[in-house]
Amino acid sequence: MKPFIDEQFLLFGDTAKRLYHDYAEKMPIIDYHCHINPREIYEDRKFENITEAWLGADHYKWRIIRSIGVEEAFVTGDADPREKFRVWAKALSRAIGNPLYAWTHLELKRYFGYDGILNEKTADEVYDLCNEKLKTLTVRKMITQANVKVICTTDDPIDSLEWHQKLRAEKDLGFQILPAWRPDKGVSIAKPGFAEYIEKLSACCGINIQNFEDLKAAYLNRLDFFEANGCANSDHGVDALVYVPATVEEVDGILRKALSGQKITLEEAAKYQTALLLFLTEQYSRRGWVMQIHQCVMRNLNPPKFEKLGPDTGFDAISNRLDTVSLAAFLSEAETRFGLPKTILYSANPADNDAIVSICQCFSAPGIGCRVIQGSAWWFNDTREGMIAQMTALANIGVLGQFLGMLTDSRSFLSYTRHEYFRRILCNLLGEWVDRGEYPADFETLGRIVEDICFYNTKRFFGFQI
Amino acid sequence: MKPFIDEQFLLFGDTAKRLYHDYAEKMPIIDYHCHINPREIYEDRKFENITEAWLGADHYKWRIIRSIGVEEAFVTGDADPREKFRVWAKALSRAIGNPLYAWTHLELKRYFGYDGILNEKTADEVYDLCNEKLKTLTVRKMITQANVKVICTTDDPIDSLEWHQKLRAEKDLGFQILPAWRPDKGVSIAKPGFAEYIEKLSACCGINIQNFEDLKAAYLNRLDFFEANGCANSDHGVDALVYVPATVEEVDGILRKALSGQKITLEEAAKYQTALLLFLTEQYSRRGWVMQIHQCVMRNLNPPKFEKLGPDTGFDAISNRLDTVSLAAFLSEAETRFGLPKTILYSANPADNDAIVSICQCFSAPGIGCRVIQGSAWWFNDTREGMIAQMTALANIGVLGQFLGMLTDSRSFLSYTRHEYFRRILCNLLGEWVDRGEYPADFETLGRIVEDICFYNTKRFFGFQI
Amino acid sequence: MKPFIDEQFLLFGDTAKRLYHDYAEKMPIIDYHCHINPREIYEDRKFENITEAWLGADHYKWRIIRSIGVEEAFVTGDADPREKFRVWAKALSRAIGNPLYAWTHLELKRYFGYDGILNEKTADEVYDLCNEKLKTLTVRKMITQANVKVICTTDDPIDSLEWHQKLRAEKDLGFQILPAWRPDKGVSIAKPGFAEYIEKLSACCGINIQNFEDLKAAYLNRLDFFEANGCANSDHGVDALVYVPATVEEVDGILRKALSGQKITLEEAAKYQTALLLFLTEQYSRRGWVMQIHQCVMRNLNPPKFEKLGPDTGFDAISNRLDTVSLAAFLSEAETRFGLPKTILYSANPADNDAIVSICQCFSAPGIGCRVIQGSAWWFNDTREGMIAQMTALANIGVLGQFLGMLTDSRSFLSYTRHEYFRRILCNLLGEWVDRGEYPADFETLGRIVEDICFYNTKRFFGFQI
Repeated sequence: MKPFIDEQFLLFGDTAKRLYHDYAEKMPIIDYHCHINPREIYEDRKFENITEAWLGADHYKWRIIRSIGVEEAFVTGDADPREKFRVWAKALSRAIGNPLYAWTHLELKRYFGYDGILNEKTADEVYDLCNEKLKTLTVRKMITQANVKVICTTDDPIDSLEWHQKLRAEKDLGFQILPAWRPDKGVSIAKPGFAEYIEKLSACCGINIQNFEDLKAAYLNRLDFFEANGCANSDHGVDALVYVPATVEEVDGILRKALSGQKITLEEAAKYQTALLLFLTEQYSRRGWVMQIHQCVMRNLNPPKFEKLGPDTGFDAISNRLDTVSLAAFLSEAETRFGLPKTILYSANPADNDAIVSICQCFSAPGIGCRVIQGSAWWFNDTREGMIAQMTALANIGVLGQFLGMLTDSRSFLSYTRHEYFRRILCNLLGEWVDRGEYPADFETLGRIVEDICFYNTKRFFGFQI
Repeated sequence: MKPFIDEQFLLFGDTAKRLYHDYAEKMPIIDYHCHINPREIYEDRKFENITEAWLGADHYKWRIIRSIGVEEAFVTGDADPREKFRVWAKALSRAIGNPLYAWTHLELKRYFGYDGILNEKTADEVYDLCNEKLKTLTVRKMITQANVKVICTTDDPIDSLEWHQKLRAEKDLGFQILPAWRPDKGVSIAKPGFAEYIEKLSACCGINIQNFEDLKAAYLNRLDFFEANGCANSDHGVDALVYVPATVEEVDGILRKALSGQKITLEEAAKYQTALLLFLTEQYSRRGWVMQIHQCVMRNLNPPKFEKLGPDTGFDAISNRLDTVSLAAFLSEAETRFGLPKTILYSANPADNDAIVSICQCFSAPGIGCRVIQGSAWWFNDTREGMIAQMTALANIGVLGQFLGMLTDSRSFLSYTRHEYFRRILCNLLGEWVDRGEYPADFETLGRIVEDICFYNTKRFFGFQI
Repeated sequence: MKPFIDEQFLLFGDTAKRLYHDYAEKMPIIDYHCHINPREIYEDRKFENITEAWLGADHYKWRIIRSIGVEEAFVTGDADPREKFRVWAKALSRAIGNPLYAWTHLELKRYFGYDGILNEKTADEVYDLCNEKLKTLTVRKMITQANVKVICTTDDPIDSLEWHQKLRAEKDLGFQILPAWRPDKGVSIAKPGFAEYIEKLSACCGINIQNFEDLKAAYLNRLDFFEANGCANSDHGVDALVYVPATVEEVDGILRKALSGQKITLEEAAKYQTALLLFLTEQYSRRGWVMQIHQCVMRNLNPPKFEKLGPDTGFDAISNRLDTVSLAAFLSEAETRFGLPKTILYSANPADNDAIVSICQCFSAPGIGCRVIQGSAWWFNDTREGMIAQMTALANIGVLGQFLGMLTDSRSFLSYTRHEYFRRILCNLLGEWVDRGEYPADFETLGRIVEDICFYNTKRFFGFQI
């Protein structure tokens, strides 16, 4: 029996251990997709207590807590922070096999120096210990301590990027905070609030958006602004990529309809999305930006909870609506018309892994290699099994050595241990293949592959200056 | 090499062995979903021979036998029972890796004390040995010997529940036999025989069903009757949950059309199913019943065989028609309108595991916790790999500690060893995680999780009085 | 740590080793589906160099090479063969976990006696060594050395079968080369070139095809011709099997429309495909042919590359468009109308494995057993994980002992080591089950299962005279 989470955690053979400790462990972190707030970095936020730091916004954890049947007050409500923490400790004990079990204990070890087990009995002890450390462990210290070199946030095109600008003005920050362009609100034409959002976009760039041409002008304006602020990274969350071509007149009509508050059909939404995404994709291609596309999530499934708590509160789920034919058609059209940008595809549904990798492999390009590539196991797949499944699909059907590795996708500053978790799994996977006689024990090559996946491939792909 | 099916069968580490032998093994069985006949329990049936007991109704086995190319006489036909058993033994030897190989030998050990291998050479010896034991091994003895405390059968709303009533009147039975409400025939409006079924339902409760209001009244009548007979458990087998809302007038029209013998379109069937399932779901919620939904099976694919042999004869298969968006919409609507009942979702398609767990997790409730939960690996997934895949998805995305564990779904009284099979796999899975250093070796917590999954969670969820 | 690809490659227990070395290894090869050119066998082609032999047509390898970002000249272009080989060596090193890594080194060992590692440093040494051997290692020697007894090629109905006829006339060839009927061009009514193809078919059999009756007559003519030339093996590559019945008049109209150059709708194509495939399926059934159906591939996704390089150049991908309901409906209809032929179903999407096996199991027949059976892990699944997944699904839901085993699907004469790769994986899978105590260590039965899967099942299923 291996001890619980020791130095060789998730590393089962000598090759794996050597790959992790000699190559992976020391690599800096590039967190090219997350949901943390740049303002909190600028202001170097301190947390009142570990409940605030851990449970303040993390809807992964909220779902776990709700599974044991407590009242919402102990989840998102106004219960006492210590009580909330006790409830969390109790729920966590039941979540055997859940990655949160490993992440939580890795965070306790790495940030708080706690080597025990968090459970109902130890909850108070852990709560007090963490709170003591949090008096000095500010957000910037968390980032620095984790050896993070680049963080890309998630920003709406109308964002002022005020905090990014302030952060860029700082000297000796020790890491870069860069914006990432996420225009979902302008893409989701059928969702409530679309017309209001377009008004804000109009106001933000001084263009009165009445038709698709106006919309493009507005986006060009904001793309220029983001680019001037260091952005070269875009991100889309869509149900699934569709490809339903339409004339400019049709798209104009659909946009006008939506702006006037009328209900949009599924087909109209698909036509608008196709036109807008093709336009944006062309822009990313011209500007040398990376395009990330996150697919197959259904959001806010529990209407009474959505009413009370709003979005991103733990009521999202995996959809199986990816249509490979549409996805391929969209990519084919973009490639034909203007050439695809560097693209990272994610699906929340692991059943799509093989299909996605096989599609990506059709769009390699000289000078780049894997120009379209499957992203890290995402959201619900952010588990040992999910990561192994994603990397195995990529290895089997594509070229794992070109993989871009891990990102946190997190809302917490304490989540960088997920990179450690990922790297251990990566090294063990490669180590097992070597130990099984499927790849030679050539550590020069293996070490380069590990370092590339942990750091250099991402640096190159995005063109980060580190 | 481990010996073939010994005491440590499927248990590979010390933690797994301890979890199984100290916690799982002694737990009673609650078989909350199966297809056995309550009359046979009341009459305490004896089987003429092992062919009758094993091969009389088990279409899992029939498929295996047909795979080696024998005439149908040796499967469902009138061949000599000993000959049929020989053919079964021959086919079984070819079915390496099939769970029937393990189940068969577990049953031979546990019920018949036979420790050898069943194959062509031993078929006669095994046949004679089993038949000798079957002279005294009645149905009730099989149940008692397996430490079964509750069995829920599968009953049509028009069932008289005569045998359930007789069984309830018995003292010292040593176990409970409870009905479970399965109204598929009234839901499947597009299937042949629907109108005739509604006539029977009309007759059964003295309500002349002409419109949807009448239908609801009839169902209320039968729900009351089932409830009065101890039922708190419902079950639906649907192609896939759909959500196509319609007005009462539309539903009335569709019902009238079907009752008059006209053909129903797919969309009409979806509207009727949506309306009826929402009505029934509300009833389950009000009455505190559990709702089970079995999805993604296609039935009777081989028309010439269906013609000759009827349903449930081994010609069913997995469909990939689950639509997560429709499933989510149905659950969302039910939650919004009246609050979901405790619900167990099954899909015959293992590709749906992750999506289903992620959807379930959106509907936890105070006091219950996981109110909507993925059921045990079902039918074609009732295998080591299938169980591991289902439990791993639940652990990764949900909270495994809240899982409801195993059921037999069986047509045979000898199938309770499937619980043993499941428990060994469960304990080995947990044991491996501990031995790998992913969860602490805290046997108090681990033992409680094992006992909860094997027994207590189900007892609590259904509210069984044991 | 196991040495890199030694005699016990992929064999991890004693049972696995014994099964492989005592049973699997010595079995001859039947390669019942591949894409090699019979003319090259007749002419006993010699290759100029290993670049030509390995990289001349193998688009699996081209995709790997493109992943590292080289110009197309080094892939399909006119770069120096030695340079191309170096680039291949470099790319291969990055493809850790890809089956090409194992296949390449197996081929180097078995055909060229090279025991080292192919990488950038050794590329020149390997290039020279292989070229030296290729001076005498002709195509026929490759086939003979690999113990191949039967090869089925892939032939269009209008093929003259000239080279097959010449090969059949040869004495002492030592192996059989048989044609396989692949009528995709006449099925794909919506693809460019359909009308031209039908003209060629008309010319080839002297029937002026104007309607569906003519088309059937033309196909009957060619089916007779193929049958007279030893063919009993057909093969279809379709997006997915559909079932959309139509009247003869409708099908006639659709065919006329296509022949006149008009665009065909998706529904029309489905109706035509249904009618034509049912007609052909009936013919295969009557003639005792085997029907292979390959589903779920999207082709030529990269239009600019297709423009330059044409089809089969590495721009195909997995689709998720299999519809189990349509597949089942097609098979049910064929079974009802005339009885299914022996049928092998493949899907490029591994998410379909379980559903396909479960559908196959509904159509077993006396005298044949598994009449409809899932084929070997195909194309993108032709990996250790893919093979294990396919065989595990078959074992769990069907009867693995009846499996038809491996084929190369290859465009290279050096690919027969894929059979070795498969057999090692098969033996290890069975060996593990035995070593885990899930199947008895009965080597008589196990050995027969291994030999059947490697050779005898296929021989019997196709009726090959060897």
